[in-house]
Amino acid sequence: MISFATDTLPIRNPRTGEFDYHIKPPSQNDVEYICYQLRKEQVAWGQMNINHRVEVLQAWKKAVNNQKEALIEALCKDTGRQWESLLEADIVASSIDRWCGIAQNFFTPATLRQSSIPFLSIQQDLVSYPLVGVISPWNFPLLLSLIDTIPALLAGCSVIVKPSEVTPRFIKVINETIAKVPALANVFIYIEGAGETGAEIIKHADLVCFTGSTATGRKVYQAACDRFIPVFLELGGKDAALVFEGADLDKAASALLWGSTANAGQSCLSIERIYVQASVFEAFVEKLAAKASEVRLAYPSVDSGKIGPIISDKQVSIINDHLRDAVEKGARILTGSSQCELHGGGYYCRPTVLVNVNHTMKVMNEETFGPIMPVMAFEDKEEALRLANGTFYGLSGAVFAATYDEALEVAQQMTAGAVSINDAALTAVMHEGEKNSFKMSGIGGTRMGLSAIKRFMRQKAYIIKTNENPDPWWF
Amino acid sequence: MISFATDTLPIRNPRTGEFDYHIKPPSQNDVEYICYQLRKEQVAWGQMNINHRVEVLQAWKKAVNNQKEALIEALCKDTGRQWESLLEADIVASSIDRWCGIAQNFFTPATLRQSSIPFLSIQQDLVSYPLVGVISPWNFPLLLSLIDTIPALLAGCSVIVKPSEVTPRFIKVINETIAKVPALANVFIYIEGAGETGAEIIKHADLVCFTGSTATGRKVYQAACDRFIPVFLELGGKDAALVFEGADLDKAASALLWGSTANAGQSCLSIERIYVQASVFEAFVEKLAAKASEVRLAYPSVDSGKIGPIISDKQVSIINDHLRDAVEKGARILTGSSQCELHGGGYYCRPTVLVNVNHTMKVMNEETFGPIMPVMAFEDKEEALRLANGTFYGLSGAVFAATYDEALEVAQQMTAGAVSINDAALTAVMHEGEKNSFKMSGIGGTRMGLSAIKRFMRQKAYIIKTNENPDPWWF
Repeated sequence: MISFATDTLPIRNPRTGEFDYHIKPPSQNDVEYICYQLRKEQVAWGQMNINHRVEVLQAWKKAVNNQKEALIEALCKDTGRQWESLLEADIVASSIDRWCGIAQNFFTPATLRQSSIPFLSIQQDLVSYPLVGVISPWNFPLLLSLIDTIPALLAGCSVIVKPSEVTPRFIKVINETIAKVPALANVFIYIEGAGETGAEIIKHADLVCFTGSTATGRKVYQAACDRFIPVFLELGGKDAALVFEGADLDKAASALLWGSTANAGQSCLSIERIYVQASVFEAFVEKLAAKASEVRLAYPSVDSGKIGPIISDKQVSIINDHLRDAVEKGARILTGSSQCELHGGGYYCRPTVLVNVNHTMKVMNEETFGPIMPVMAFEDKEEALRLANGTFYGLSGAVFAATYDEALEVAQQMTAGAVSINDAALTAVMHEGEKNSFKMSGIGGTRMGLSAIKRFMRQKAYIIKTNENPDPWWF
Repeated sequence: MISFATDTLPIRNPRTGEFDYHIKPPSQNDVEYICYQLRKEQVAWGQMNINHRVEVLQAWKKAVNNQKEALIEALCKDTGRQWESLLEADIVASSIDRWCGIAQNFFTPATLRQSSIPFLSIQQDLVSYPLVGVISPWNFPLLLSLIDTIPALLAGCSVIVKPSEVTPRFIKVINETIAKVPALANVFIYIEGAGETGAEIIKHADLVCFTGSTATGRKVYQAACDRFIPVFLELGGKDAALVFEGADLDKAASALLWGSTANAGQSCLSIERIYVQASVFEAFVEKLAAKASEVRLAYPSVDSGKIGPIISDKQVSIINDHLRDAVEKGARILTGSSQCELHGGGYYCRPTVLVNVNHTMKVMNEETFGPIMPVMAFEDKEEALRLANGTFYGLSGAVFAATYDEALEVAQQMTAGAVSINDAALTAVMHEGEKNSFKMSGIGGTRMGLSAIKRFMRQKAYIIKTNENPDPWWF
């Protein structure tokens, strides 16, 4: 077999613009060998009692906590931001606890039961997919590398994770924590690499989970299809918020500012379009622009403000393109950046409120992934829903109205997997709701709740002839 | 848009070999318009109370029962066989009742519940996929056209079904029964056509279910991937049976004869390979060959015997090729046909027992889909499992041993979705076990039990801010 990428890849620092790190993707042979080993070790891992797997993950939780400072430092360098890096490192422990709880309640020993046919009994079994491949994005490098991984490990799978090459500095630290727990190290590894390493994983995995752009997600679906394996894709969004007359405009403005600009808008569940009922449009926009103009950049120091750098330089071009396109087509910037601003080598975009926008603009149709808030007026509920649903994405959304009932009735007609009511982007904090991605925002089962664990196992049935059948079937 | 197939297709009669029927596949425009209508009508169907959908399906059950004779007559002509046609027509009613029962217990009104976060409540919702496309095979034309369809209808989807062009005579009758129930006719139709009509359905459906060969299933997966829609595939099998020393050899021989030759072997869940422990090999083979030689062809009349014609003339070539290949490589036919036999224009294959077989032969590797029983010896459990699992299929299997426990222990190590214990092909009669297809035998969730209904709906979550949050998130 031919090796393809023994060369190192230089990695850009989002705060300085300097290429101050490098990764060395494994060769094709390396990936194949790692997958072979993981698959071999999975046999024992998959047969292990759930309490044992829980113990192993709890040991890993301690190892992660022991290395938390190093992890946060790496994540800060990877992403150029602080608050979200602290959050990401904190969430590992609570995620492990949550998934362990769900898994322990789920796995019970299979028993033989009488079926409705007198001479047949039945027993159910669960068989883990041996090797799960996880390909994760740069916007929450640690968090999104674990969202499928922890339930897959608890389901008894081996897992190989390939995070984005844009944010690879945390990989060494996380692999060190895994190495601290030998039983886990047998079945779990992170590897460095770019797209071609991800493609290599798909060649060996039995199931693939991908979080990232819709464009790349379609390629992953294609590669999984070629190998005839199942795939779970969580892709882009163009989440709409609807603000109706009667809603608390001040609270709506605060919530939408958070929902649109947290992590500098670099979240799939960011609010990317705001539609406001015409009668309250001016009042809302005034509040939003005032609040937005007060938000500071996290520059010169990482704790100077809330808005960190745009992590990926490719994303900078997209944001700039969307802003340019909108202004050329008549949009007006009330506050914010007309283009990403270069400070100390990093690109930053201020919370930016746009009005005079319409659906001919990229900023209303394509995922921007920046802290941009285009605001557009609607007359009535029908128009609001037509605008909100007029996208090929369907990840989530938000509705603000005078009463929960009024908001809920609108939410039920939105073609998206989750809708926040009288707040924005609540899927960022809520892990209990099971939800699917609609339209081009994803494919496959929910990543929350028990269903998320079940995805990683196949059901198997034993059908047992327990009594004498009066006659052979028909011979 | 360009029409592609306004010409009629002549259809071969499997008993006479004559092309005595024709179908006229709809044009591209027709398919598009039918799908548009079904999708439009689905809105009301999907919002309907489950009890109402159950009533509609129960009304349809009556309509099917009223036309049962015509349905059986059409199925007999389509397949050239009687017993299985009676069974197929009978199963409609029991399937509807079973699925209605499962659905009625499942759908309960969604309620708001407090989440673990004090100021957030959550409510779950289910959103049906608007239009499900079902592409079904010729081996059980009615039964397999309904296996995904009834749960999809109960889930609130519209359904368009395209049965195989090999067995299309029952379509007119089934559409007449649907027309008798106007509420159902709005959301449910069968259309005639071959592969290109199936491809046209995939262009418009929101989810595709396909039952058929692995080769075609891969193309369906590809087409679904191109459209970025989910797909459920139930494909081929090469089911192995393992017979251990201590098993009741007489019962095993009867069960395996049934499991291998029912419907002339034209079932995905047919036993296609029999492995017998060396110490009882001769005794088992003698019994199997004796029993097999007594089974009669359903010729000259449809009730002359149990073995009807091979339905598809393409399959005749495959069976002949597998038999020829096996004999050339040293296999010995103890009883049966060395090639399919032509009687009155139809092709028949007798229950055929082969010994001296090995894994270089097509008959041990590729799906034969005929009443062929290649029998091979093994020494111990390890060899038995290596042989049984040495296939790229993983649909189902069977184990015969002295005790259930001994058989179960082997069954747990078989890489297949369902294993019959001390009987064969029990998935044909058992609808309670939830099971997935392993390896190349399929992809997507189980077609049995509640999970089968859930496949047709997306989960949606409403996350509601019910109390005042002490602070806006971080602004």
